[in-house]
Amino acid sequence: MTRLSIIFDTDPGQDDAVAILALLGARDGIDLLSLTTVAGNVGLGLTSRNARIVCEWARRPDVPVYAGCEHPLLRPLVTAEQVHGKTGLDGVPIHEPNMPLQGKHAVDFIVDTLREAAAGTITLCPVGPLTNIALALRKAPDIAARIKEIVLMGGAYFAGGNVSPAAEFNIFVDPEAAAVVLGSGVPLVMLPLDVTHQVCSSAPRIARMRALPNRCGPLAADILTSYERHDVQRFGVHGSPLHDPCVVAYLLQPALFTGRQVNVEVETASPLTRGATVVDWWGISGRPANVQYITKADADGVFALLTDCLAKLP
Amino acid sequence: MTRLSIIFDTDPGQDDAVAILALLGARDGIDLLSLTTVAGNVGLGLTSRNARIVCEWARRPDVPVYAGCEHPLLRPLVTAEQVHGKTGLDGVPIHEPNMPLQGKHAVDFIVDTLREAAAGTITLCPVGPLTNIALALRKAPDIAARIKEIVLMGGAYFAGGNVSPAAEFNIFVDPEAAAVVLGSGVPLVMLPLDVTHQVCSSAPRIARMRALPNRCGPLAADILTSYERHDVQRFGVHGSPLHDPCVVAYLLQPALFTGRQVNVEVETASPLTRGATVVDWWGISGRPANVQYITKADADGVFALLTDCLAKLP
Amino acid sequence: MTRLSIIFDTDPGQDDAVAILALLGARDGIDLLSLTTVAGNVGLGLTSRNARIVCEWARRPDVPVYAGCEHPLLRPLVTAEQVHGKTGLDGVPIHEPNMPLQGKHAVDFIVDTLREAAAGTITLCPVGPLTNIALALRKAPDIAARIKEIVLMGGAYFAGGNVSPAAEFNIFVDPEAAAVVLGSGVPLVMLPLDVTHQVCSSAPRIARMRALPNRCGPLAADILTSYERHDVQRFGVHGSPLHDPCVVAYLLQPALFTGRQVNVEVETASPLTRGATVVDWWGISGRPANVQYITKADADGVFALLTDCLAKLP
Amino acid sequence: MTRLSIIFDTDPGQDDAVAILALLGARDGIDLLSLTTVAGNVGLGLTSRNARIVCEWARRPDVPVYAGCEHPLLRPLVTAEQVHGKTGLDGVPIHEPNMPLQGKHAVDFIVDTLREAAAGTITLCPVGPLTNIALALRKAPDIAARIKEIVLMGGAYFAGGNVSPAAEFNIFVDPEAAAVVLGSGVPLVMLPLDVTHQVCSSAPRIARMRALPNRCGPLAADILTSYERHDVQRFGVHGSPLHDPCVVAYLLQPALFTGRQVNVEVETASPLTRGATVVDWWGISGRPANVQYITKADADGVFALLTDCLAKLP
Repeated sequence: MTRLSIIFDTDPGQDDAVAILALLGARDGIDLLSLTTVAGNVGLGLTSRNARIVCEWARRPDVPVYAGCEHPLLRPLVTAEQVHGKTGLDGVPIHEPNMPLQGKHAVDFIVDTLREAAAGTITLCPVGPLTNIALALRKAPDIAARIKEIVLMGGAYFAGGNVSPAAEFNIFVDPEAAAVVLGSGVPLVMLPLDVTHQVCSSAPRIARMRALPNRCGPLAADILTSYERHDVQRFGVHGSPLHDPCVVAYLLQPALFTGRQVNVEVETASPLTRGATVVDWWGISGRPANVQYITKADADGVFALLTDCLAKLP
Repeated sequence: MTRLSIIFDTDPGQDDAVAILALLGARDGIDLLSLTTVAGNVGLGLTSRNARIVCEWARRPDVPVYAGCEHPLLRPLVTAEQVHGKTGLDGVPIHEPNMPLQGKHAVDFIVDTLREAAAGTITLCPVGPLTNIALALRKAPDIAARIKEIVLMGGAYFAGGNVSPAAEFNIFVDPEAAAVVLGSGVPLVMLPLDVTHQVCSSAPRIARMRALPNRCGPLAADILTSYERHDVQRFGVHGSPLHDPCVVAYLLQPALFTGRQVNVEVETASPLTRGATVVDWWGISGRPANVQYITKADADGVFALLTDCLAKLP
Repeated sequence: MTRLSIIFDTDPGQDDAVAILALLGARDGIDLLSLTTVAGNVGLGLTSRNARIVCEWARRPDVPVYAGCEHPLLRPLVTAEQVHGKTGLDGVPIHEPNMPLQGKHAVDFIVDTLREAAAGTITLCPVGPLTNIALALRKAPDIAARIKEIVLMGGAYFAGGNVSPAAEFNIFVDPEAAAVVLGSGVPLVMLPLDVTHQVCSSAPRIARMRALPNRCGPLAADILTSYERHDVQRFGVHGSPLHDPCVVAYLLQPALFTGRQVNVEVETASPLTRGATVVDWWGISGRPANVQYITKADADGVFALLTDCLAKLP
Repeated sequence: MTRLSIIFDTDPGQDDAVAILALLGARDGIDLLSLTTVAGNVGLGLTSRNARIVCEWARRPDVPVYAGCEHPLLRPLVTAEQVHGKTGLDGVPIHEPNMPLQGKHAVDFIVDTLREAAAGTITLCPVGPLTNIALALRKAPDIAARIKEIVLMGGAYFAGGNVSPAAEFNIFVDPEAAAVVLGSGVPLVMLPLDVTHQVCSSAPRIARMRALPNRCGPLAADILTSYERHDVQRFGVHGSPLHDPCVVAYLLQPALFTGRQVNVEVETASPLTRGATVVDWWGISGRPANVQYITKADADGVFALLTDCLAKLP
């Protein structure tokens, strides 16, 4: 596998935190250019703080963290404190980070980095609302042709939504941003609830993380234990879906996942179905395919991979 | 089981035809007050003719057939000749029926019958677009309290749509009528694609119908053989889903089906998701439950039951 | 002028009451086949009662009154008690009418009457929400070709709305019904706020009605005096617009009005602009003309005509 | 009058060109910090070129010109070559400008300038689609509190639309950007078609510009002569409306204009009314006022003022 250069756009968030930890453990395979933060699970101030906290947990204060957009393109911000807690990282002790935020806006970092690098060499990995990516594409349309791929967590079709019966949280929060990204012409991979609901925490899976002889393994285990409280008896899943870590697993071992190249459009016009990702799985709409839409995962493989990544951390 | 009195509102259509045959064979359990017809799979002239043809196949010219609405409340009519053929009954020889259409409008028949019968004794069974039912409810709102239950074929949530990625055909054709019915307060049972895609034709299932020692069994087998051509390699089903016959099976043996009492709303505002039935399966919307939404069927049981019904016909 | 045969579809309402009085006084020119009532300014029970009260004021218990739809096609009913008072006829003494409601539903009366009369001989005059007309057109599409013309009060374009900044009350209450009527292909004349806001009560105009040597003149004057209270300092008008009486004046003397044959569409998809009538006054949309949209009136002429009509009443 | 500091955001465009000329002539009263360009009447490449051409006509190559967004937030770009010609400045000889475009993105210029200046000292004057302003507000929400006022040309209510029966061009092109601006909390002044249709070219008005003893007066006259060809027999105006110059006139002499502080919302959900500016002129919606909405102008005063400004140019 060639080494990937990525920008990870995130709104930590508990599953984001586990994803970032795994990503930091995967440095042999992935060159993480920066974390860019966005408002989503909690407000921008908290996501920007939490991103740095997680870097410090992994003793990686060298990872640059850029703050992005405070709220969605059009809609008032909706957050998910009921899942992630007031801090966004409830359930583990958090500290005030020492490492600074970068001065540049995340959108400018994304634009400048894509323009400076060779075309087709950088992958964007948004795991929160797509506000930063959409704003970058609108401010600097030339970057669309320079992005290698966007691998994102978001959407739902067969699974039904989580924040509403019609929509998954990330897309619901900023459906217009999602529309910009889906219409950008950039190669897209979506990891929706359809697949992330197959990749759920369980006692043995968490136990294997907790048994790691380092600090970050048990920390990830604690986060997942806290995170689990929300989804019990909801959405038909056992344990909690590791939404965002699926993106990291996909980057490292895409063969753990199965999908189909299809058309996906997002609903922005109606309140009832706001943020629904309409997937033309059977090719009946005549609309051109724009997304590799992932629907299956080898959950054991994903957990083994994530645990391996965590094992490489301090 | 108490004997059910029903009005079967239909747009035959191949699977409608099999449903009507099964219904006519089920006269021990079901008192069929009339067939009412609506534009849907094909235009109203054809659905009204086809309903009578099927009655004559079963030697039941005594069943009154009332023609209803020529087109949807608001939208131009969309039909499904690509599935059912130009006649709506392609694949079997059809004849000009001898039995007449009734003079009264289907909507008036529905209203008058509900007003004349004891309250709570009549079940409406729409298996096409819901235009007739909606118009009856709007013209005569007092009937809502007199309907025992509406058991309908329509909608899709987990399965995805069939006429568009977001919607099932019956609801797509007249989403406003569906909105009227869903908001009527009448007890509702929906049999959506989620369940009908589990009840598919297969060579042995068709063979058992064909082997019946009567005329209607092989006829149903011929219809299903023709009907099957459409769905091969679509929608992930093997064979063709027997959408409308599921309603008959549900009326006779509801224990063959499993569902949940949930809120269902229908999308009428947006072109992209027109006719989507938004099912709050996990109870996250706070909207009150209005539908028994069926998601599972014992397919072998349904086929055995339908074949038993067909066996009682000439 | 050839004598017009009309069905007047109404939701009285104060200005409706004046319109009905004028109509009853205009029997030399207009053959009023019936009043049909609809829910709008107040609920159906009250509009059906008020229609009969007005007939009895004019000593015309022979005018058949048919009750129609209790509520709009899709939307919950919105009423206008803040304008017309709790009874719909606040400001004058009202009584329990002696004349009965007809047994037939208004929709059926409309359909049956159009089918029985020679084609092109009957004008429909809806001055409330268009629910009855839409339901008749959907239940019996053949009547579209039999209607001479629909002359309606409703809509607004240059004037802005009255029930919302975007919409006039009648269209707002049942925009889907308006969409059915606008798309029906029937010749349409619309008298919108653009014109009715030019036809406002004033002290001298009311005084001339009050000075009539009969009972109904002063009664109309009392109604208008009460009606006036609402609009003072609103909508930039002096006095109160005689919305519905404009339809009567148009029927009797169309030369008092000026308009243009244009395309009009109605907004049904968005909450913000619900019920807006989008008038392509300058022909820039490419959509075909479907409405004679009236924008100017000779207000003095209209008042003189209405007063003449009232003068012929007891 | 205190001297205004403004950023003029523009998509020239013929009336934009006249507005810029007037602005450059008004340097005693207005400190023009820069022209920022946006796609609108023609594409961004042309608007950015045209802005510089106009500066060079006025011998003002010192005015910095920053290019902004190539297309609207969500929608495909719609242009108006049918009005402004292929170049955007049809009707006068144009040249390739010598002065350069600035390197910074217009959005960044707007954000940086507002952050560097004292709060409440800079007025933004967008006379094209609001894409740049919306993007700046979303990228840097802190600037909202630093803007003195936004004085914009756009919208229509009483006048009806020009690009569609429901919408004015600037708002229609990027309704989502307009929604961001209208919801920003920044003090807003809108100069819609309602007022600009009162400020139309005429032979004597153009003649007075042509008679100026300089180069730019006759040039403006030539532009307006060419511009006039489009609107003849449209929109009920005589001559052509000087949309964008109204903003310059308002900045210099607000007393030439009359308006009202009202709520304005923009339609983004429906195709039929896309970009309609819903103005609550009569205060019936209960929504808070957010705009000084201008409806009347002293047209002679505006033309005299503009001609005075042009007179000060070379």
